Amino acid sequence: MANSKLKFILASTSPRRKELIGHLKVPFEIMSLNIPEESDFTDPVKFSQEISNLKGEAVFNKLLAENPSGSYYVVSADTIVCLNGKIYGKPKDRNEARVFLSELAGKTHSVFTAVSVNVLYEGKKHFFSFVDETKVTFNHISDALMERYLDTGDSLDKAGAYGIQGGSLTFISKVEGDYANVVGFPISRFVLESEKFLKTQFPQEALWLNLF
Amino acid sequence: MANSKLKFILASTSPRRKELIGHLKVPFEIMSLNIPEESDFTDPVKFSQEISNLKGEAVFNKLLAENPSGSYYVVSADTIVCLNGKIYGKPKDRNEARVFLSELAGKTHSVFTAVSVNVLYEGKKHFFSFVDETKVTFNHISDALMERYLDTGDSLDKAGAYGIQGGSLTFISKVEGDYANVVGFPISRFVLESEKFLKTQFPQEALWLNLF
Repeated sequence: MANSKLKFILASTSPRRKELIGHLKVPFEIMSLNIPEESDFTDPVKFSQEISNLKGEAVFNKLLAENPSGSYYVVSADTIVCLNGKIYGKPKDRNEARVFLSELAGKTHSVFTAVSVNVLYEGKKHFFSFVDETKVTFNHISDALMERYLDTGDSLDKAGAYGIQGGSLTFISKVEGDYANVVGFPISRFVLESEKFLKTQFPQEALWLNLF
Repeated sequence: MANSKLKFILASTSPRRKELIGHLKVPFEIMSLNIPEESDFTDPVKFSQEISNLKGEAVFNKLLAENPSGSYYVVSADTIVCLNGKIYGKPKDRNEARVFLSELAGKTHSVFTAVSVNVLYEGKKHFFSFVDETKVTFNHISDALMERYLDTGDSLDKAGAYGIQGGSLTFISKVEGDYANVVGFPISRFVLESEKFLKTQFPQEALWLNLF
């Protein structure tokens, strides 16, 4: 590990992604650039993938311009909520959060997180990405529970107006798939995909993360 | 709510249950007695139910002896992990935690949380309980990931030697069912079951929790 050339960069300022990746106990740095989270795609997989790619490329290109002989493993991600073809990003205020949650109440929606990995290694660029889907079912949300949840302010910086790790658990009845994916980063699949990528592309670096 | 006679008591010292119930934003008190977590049942539903009942009854009987004219809503719970008929409680040390996790690795196990509610209302005892099951799938766990997780100490006070809200997410690939149930308390179902119970038994108290 000490001899690895690769530097692990998380291209996201999300404290939840930072915490999830922190569980790996692998050194990493955070570097993020402001990217408008907009896409013309209506397909949720393509939508999240495009935004995740844009976030990753911005950081990757900056690193490449500054130090073209370095070696980087730049990881970016984007999480969206989708129900009946409608894509839910972050609500703009409490009223929109209430609208989002009312639409999701009593139904099962999908959470998609796209992960993009841009790699520079010995002057050559590599790339891989994947999208993970988890289904989440909400109970009916009473007005009282709704307002108590909105009071926490937890909705405002999160896709679909909820964070699964907090008060929304009072009305979430079911998760089907990776839980961490709903938090914002499918960490267990990231370990498997990184293992596959490293062992295939850079067997000499497969021990880099010291995880497999 | 101000006029309610009922006092909400959580008969558990688990900080995770306290946090989950805290999301309801309803006042409650914690009162717990040490009960040996043992049962002769081999069926996981009956096993968890017996221990949850014992925890609740101990607190309920103490309250009843101290103040037989009071009104209480005593909530207790017990969480166990089960795979192939074997019931996993809390590991006794790091070595046993490693054994538990190695047995669960690469497989899907069940987490059962039993919830018991003992109620004293106008001198009369009422009771209801339910058990919630969630399936959790682990990836293969590499030696490196295993030791890093054991290093966190997260295993020691938890059934099955893991807490789903921490570093175990690096090897958990799937959840099917209520996530909060795996944390230790199926809070969304507790809301629904309490609503049903209160509306049927004490319509005059149905607004007590101010939740429905």
